[in-house]
Amino acid sequence: MLKLECFPNQFPDRDYEVEHTCPEFTAVCPKTGQPDFATIVIHYVPDQHVIELKSLKYYLFSFRDRGIFYEHSINTILNDLVAASKPRQMTVIGHFNARGGVTSKITVRYSGPSH
Amino acid sequence: MLKLECFPNQFPDRDYEVEHTCPEFTAVCPKTGQPDFATIVIHYVPDQHVIELKSLKYYLFSFRDRGIFYEHSINTILNDLVAASKPRQMTVIGHFNARGGVTSKITVRYSGPSH
Amino acid sequence: MLKLECFPNQFPDRDYEVEHTCPEFTAVCPKTGQPDFATIVIHYVPDQHVIELKSLKYYLFSFRDRGIFYEHSINTILNDLVAASKPRQMTVIGHFNARGGVTSKITVRYSGPSH
Amino acid sequence: MLKLECFPNQFPDRDYEVEHTCPEFTAVCPKTGQPDFATIVIHYVPDQHVIELKSLKYYLFSFRDRGIFYEHSINTILNDLVAASKPRQMTVIGHFNARGGVTSKITVRYSGPSH
Amino acid sequence: MLKLECFPNQFPDRDYEVEHTCPEFTAVCPKTGQPDFATIVIHYVPDQHVIELKSLKYYLFSFRDRGIFYEHSINTILNDLVAASKPRQMTVIGHFNARGGVTSKITVRYSGPSH
Amino acid sequence: MLKLECFPNQFPDRDYEVEHTCPEFTAVCPKTGQPDFATIVIHYVPDQHVIELKSLKYYLFSFRDRGIFYEHSINTILNDLVAASKPRQMTVIGHFNARGGVTSKITVRYSGPSH
Amino acid sequence: MLKLECFPNQFPDRDYEVEHTCPEFTAVCPKTGQPDFATIVIHYVPDQHVIELKSLKYYLFSFRDRGIFYEHSINTILNDLVAASKPRQMTVIGHFNARGGVTSKITVRYSGPSH
Amino acid sequence: MLKLECFPNQFPDRDYEVEHTCPEFTAVCPKTGQPDFATIVIHYVPDQHVIELKSLKYYLFSFRDRGIFYEHSINTILNDLVAASKPRQMTVIGHFNARGGVTSKITVRYSGPSH
Amino acid sequence: MLKLECFPNQFPDRDYEVEHTCPEFTAVCPKTGQPDFATIVIHYVPDQHVIELKSLKYYLFSFRDRGIFYEHSINTILNDLVAASKPRQMTVIGHFNARGGVTSKITVRYSGPSH
Amino acid sequence: MLKLECFPNQFPDRDYEVEHTCPEFTAVCPKTGQPDFATIVIHYVPDQHVIELKSLKYYLFSFRDRGIFYEHSINTILNDLVAASKPRQMTVIGHFNARGGVTSKITVRYSGPSH
Repeated sequence: MLKLECFPNQFPDRDYEVEHTCPEFTAVCPKTGQPDFATIVIHYVPDQHVIELKSLKYYLFSFRDRGIFYEHSINTILNDLVAASKPRQMTVIGHFNARGGVTSKITVRYSGPSH
Repeated sequence: MLKLECFPNQFPDRDYEVEHTCPEFTAVCPKTGQPDFATIVIHYVPDQHVIELKSLKYYLFSFRDRGIFYEHSINTILNDLVAASKPRQMTVIGHFNARGGVTSKITVRYSGPSH
Repeated sequence: MLKLECFPNQFPDRDYEVEHTCPEFTAVCPKTGQPDFATIVIHYVPDQHVIELKSLKYYLFSFRDRGIFYEHSINTILNDLVAASKPRQMTVIGHFNARGGVTSKITVRYSGPSH
Repeated sequence: MLKLECFPNQFPDRDYEVEHTCPEFTAVCPKTGQPDFATIVIHYVPDQHVIELKSLKYYLFSFRDRGIFYEHSINTILNDLVAASKPRQMTVIGHFNARGGVTSKITVRYSGPSH
Repeated sequence: MLKLECFPNQFPDRDYEVEHTCPEFTAVCPKTGQPDFATIVIHYVPDQHVIELKSLKYYLFSFRDRGIFYEHSINTILNDLVAASKPRQMTVIGHFNARGGVTSKITVRYSGPSH
Repeated sequence: MLKLECFPNQFPDRDYEVEHTCPEFTAVCPKTGQPDFATIVIHYVPDQHVIELKSLKYYLFSFRDRGIFYEHSINTILNDLVAASKPRQMTVIGHFNARGGVTSKITVRYSGPSH
Repeated sequence: MLKLECFPNQFPDRDYEVEHTCPEFTAVCPKTGQPDFATIVIHYVPDQHVIELKSLKYYLFSFRDRGIFYEHSINTILNDLVAASKPRQMTVIGHFNARGGVTSKITVRYSGPSH
Repeated sequence: MLKLECFPNQFPDRDYEVEHTCPEFTAVCPKTGQPDFATIVIHYVPDQHVIELKSLKYYLFSFRDRGIFYEHSINTILNDLVAASKPRQMTVIGHFNARGGVTSKITVRYSGPSH
Repeated sequence: MLKLECFPNQFPDRDYEVEHTCPEFTAVCPKTGQPDFATIVIHYVPDQHVIELKSLKYYLFSFRDRGIFYEHSINTILNDLVAASKPRQMTVIGHFNARGGVTSKITVRYSGPSH
Repeated sequence: MLKLECFPNQFPDRDYEVEHTCPEFTAVCPKTGQPDFATIVIHYVPDQHVIELKSLKYYLFSFRDRGIFYEHSINTILNDLVAASKPRQMTVIGHFNARGGVTSKITVRYSGPSH
């Protein structure tokens, strides 16, 4: 996995929300080998660390050649971002483009110990 | 009924949400024999099983020649999907195209025993 | 009043929601004699009876020549539909087209005894 | 037919365009007796007469109880408005609400002798 | 102040909601003398009185030549409408057009004694 | 093929335009056996015959079980409608839902001999 | 009439287009005394003079208390702007808010002698 | 920092909400020196002071040449506005334009002591 | 280059139009190595050959790992599709997602010898 | 003026179109000193040179501190881009945000000698 960088949160006494929306996520379907496309929304309350935006972009681009199911990719993104940034709360949502006429949305949430 | 396939949930310790939207549902009106059209939204929290997307698509296509009322079809889809995937929670919504100038929306919910 | 027909609810053990939207409602202003136009939304939880769609359409068309105020028509529709279908809950909303540059929305709710 | 009133065009030396849009047109289907709904657009270049707006509104309301086909009503409106206002050019468009899932649009044009 | 007229509420036993939206509100900025423009939304639960629509329209038009700040006008409208109609609840919202690139929205609420 | 009915054009001296939009077209892919979905737009200038709307609807529904390619179905619809109604001009457009992430639009035109 | 100011066109050798859109036009109906509201679009090709924006705004505001018909106001604006700025071409469009359910659009054009 | 001006709240006995939306915020990225663009939404409940709109606009324009991170700028705006106007509650949201295909939204909230 | 497949045009006597829209095109920037994203629109009039849809999809996916400039990729797609299908006319448009806040659109056209 | 860079056009035998849209243009009003905001659209047919995208972005950012009128800035951008890239045709459009409630759009065109 590509290393996710953070920088120190300058306002740790306050609960505030950061949301990043990346409409350019693409991975590969592990069954057909065909590309999948999604918009990824990451919403979190930082604790001591703020996720660096360029690093996040590179991290999401690292899925470009990975064969992975929808549900797996969104859970994996949440786990990786929680491990890297230790947020108070985090939600990751993937809005996947239609396949066979069906669009899909996966929503995964994390709540830190003290919240 | 066409058999609905599932695969094991790799993240059963976490409550997360899956939503599939199929704008290509069609059945037949049991009174007039004319086709009805709807967008079906399926929203659920998986327990041990995740519904396989292609199998879901084929299942919804199996209504193409069935004569069935709006309220009956949405309740039936919920019952079939609950039986096949045993989710923690599930909601099925049908947005039906206008007939006689009137559009209709049917919403049916299921909550599993421990939730 | 035109008779509203119902058919038996096949899933009475479950609370589920039915919503019909009719953008073709028209009545007559009792003061000016000019036509009024509205979109009517009917949202309810059926108990033993489901409102038959064609019958509902004819019922709403029966206002075409009646002189009636906005607030009166929406309360009357709720009362008639509750009397005919005895739902667990019902909401009727009327979105009226602009008159004198002002659009109006009337929302009336009913909750049955045991809910 | 209700009489359509006009007032004198104060700028007859100039070709200019007037367009009225009425989303509240309703007539009756001559086959089923059920109401039809349409948005009527009237676009014209006045010659000596300008159509009075309130009179136009009442004229369009006069179709409320007439049984008439789509194509007939739009051609009739054009003929009546041309007879009453003698414009240089006129187009009448009817956008009819869906019936049986099919929406319809009828467009009829008139060009005066010297244009 | 222009007198606001009401008529008796025919359904006083029921809490229901009335909402009027007027996109044609204009007043004058007391500092610059330039006109301000807003959409006013009035949402209320009537008690014994229902606000008459034409009277409301004239009341809102009475601000056309008044020099008044945003916050003052919306609070004043709420106070006047509460005094005239004694509602169970009322909310008045003003959506003001951009000035200096900044749009503004003012929301004022009233709750009657027993609610 | 289902028979398409017409009725006599009451305004044959005038070129006017009729457009029908049917968002509920469905056929079957001849390669995969899976359903395809499209919105069909039919735009024409009637000569002596006007296409009857209900008959058109039934004609389009007759494709529901036919295996046919996009390009073939739209050319076939044009040919059938021209043969049945002998219009002065006709255009048929099919907007097909995404398959493999790709949406398709097919446009076929006909011009009668004297136009 | 309020004086309209212009400044010299710095690029008179080139035909270029300027378009101003003012959604805050209001005048008074000469029959009812009630306010009318419109969006005014002014599109022109300057010759030696460019219309100063603030002066244009004040000019449009000067209609606030004038009783004037739709067709008259748009023709008058065109005449005043042509007299003040002597453009190569100019079009003025007024999109008037609904009155009696009918919206209106007036379009007036001017072409200078050498164009 | 530019001084933020306020004027006295004329309705301090009532909790009401003021929301300003400025789509013309721009600052400079401290890493690349390139400009960033955002829409800033300020929502607050005034206590004794109301923020003067022109002063707010100038304050937001003062960021035009400052190098500052997203999270820092929104927290700073909240702190400055709270210090200047001592509101009962305040929320500041920044919707930042896409950089590297990723849009970002920062939401910061303040609640005064007695609320 | 991946081989593009065609099938025989069944209606070669008629000029008709086919348009495919693929919102899932991605290539790599040859300068930065970062992915680019675009929607590709292909519009053509077939002569003897119709482009097979699945083959087109695979062809577009073959750019996924190629480093290529915007202008080059769209000209290349046109050249490849013209060589493979020998159409009467063809237009290829690429709508590229924002980079540095700037979106780009490239439009390339081909007209066959006899048209 | 910042130097605009170009790279050689690899397809000079073909007329094709390039369009760049930059919603992040900002300059300063020479009268008030306040910032103006616009979306700039640049549409051109390259001859031997293609404008480099990053260089274009920096060029547009160079207006950030310049006091310049709307009409002047768009004519200047056209002149600079024509001088730097010698295109066959070029159009520059500026969509300026509302000032005093009025939005403005300036459109300037260039046609090269042989076109």
